[in-house]
Amino acid sequence: MSESLIPRATLGRLPMYLEYLQGLTLSDNSTISAAAIARGLELGEVMVRKDLAAVSGSGRPKVGYVAQELICALQACLEQRSNTKAVLIGAGKLGRALLEFSGFEEYGIQIVAAFDCNDQVLRYSRTSKEILPLREFDRYCREQQIRIGIITVGAGSAQQVADLMVAAGIRAIWNFAPCDLQLPYHVILKQENLALSLAYLCNQLK
Amino acid sequence: MSESLIPRATLGRLPMYLEYLQGLTLSDNSTISAAAIARGLELGEVMVRKDLAAVSGSGRPKVGYVAQELICALQACLEQRSNTKAVLIGAGKLGRALLEFSGFEEYGIQIVAAFDCNDQVLRYSRTSKEILPLREFDRYCREQQIRIGIITVGAGSAQQVADLMVAAGIRAIWNFAPCDLQLPYHVILKQENLALSLAYLCNQLK
Repeated sequence: MSESLIPRATLGRLPMYLEYLQGLTLSDNSTISAAAIARGLELGEVMVRKDLAAVSGSGRPKVGYVAQELICALQACLEQRSNTKAVLIGAGKLGRALLEFSGFEEYGIQIVAAFDCNDQVLRYSRTSKEILPLREFDRYCREQQIRIGIITVGAGSAQQVADLMVAAGIRAIWNFAPCDLQLPYHVILKQENLALSLAYLCNQLK
Repeated sequence: MSESLIPRATLGRLPMYLEYLQGLTLSDNSTISAAAIARGLELGEVMVRKDLAAVSGSGRPKVGYVAQELICALQACLEQRSNTKAVLIGAGKLGRALLEFSGFEEYGIQIVAAFDCNDQVLRYSRTSKEILPLREFDRYCREQQIRIGIITVGAGSAQQVADLMVAAGIRAIWNFAPCDLQLPYHVILKQENLALSLAYLCNQLK
């Protein structure tokens, strides 16, 4: 992980800070302190201070941040991935749900296409985005320089699909299939375990 | 959280220990040590020892665990939720994907029914499980004593759906809608933020 990696929890709060600041009436030189933002959002001041420092350094003592600069820094942080394109393989229900989910755009990420080897899916799915035959995957990823791949096939095909992704230049894989993947060391894996998430929630009920 | 709460990571490994032990040829009195299990699964011994202690106490010194007892303890831990029934509201693509996902059963959890107020969904969905009209939700939950609810509607309806769940006796909510929910203190919330998961993965690529 790079030293500049923004913690996950911080990243999750950035859209909220941005929305808050954009909702204020600000002149070009308005300043705002971390404390004022914390009060406005009813959050802990220490946390807000840390979050903003990760994005835009420390504010000036007794002055805080120039609000417009902070907005730009937040936008840069969220939108520097605005050209981040992801693809997915496996256009079943979950795959298509992700394909149509609009929440990724808040983070500047677009799932630009899905791939499937099932002709039924290709023909009959009603989505606004492309669902393409799997044989076009490699060429598509190379042409579009895709580095993020999402696996939403069953456990039985996941390794094969992961191998395809690696061969096509994918550098980070988000795997929803409940299985272990063998990947080269340079490929980052995020294993999504929905069953465990639910089990853990149930466990807390006891 | 109760003191007996099994850590999430431990919970995630229990099916693996169970499968491993069930694959061994064991007599009624066979014993097995945490160290042997760790070797068999190529895992760290300290971790395995802690995991098993959370489930079945410490093994006996120099002997380890009676394998059948350990199997029973693991099964109890995973299957004491075998009657755990969950329901979901929002039978769109994501909802139906979860409804048909078989991975929950490993943890003794069943999503027994989905609810939706869209007649189209009720009529045309091809799932093996029931998709019922939302007006039947309250009665169903009370009759079946459901305590776990999953929200897979859009952010605009999520609070309303959460209120319905709380009124019907739901005690734990797994929310996929990208919004904050206001819930009574006795209801446990797990907020699933898929956009953030993907954003965080992308962030690691930089």
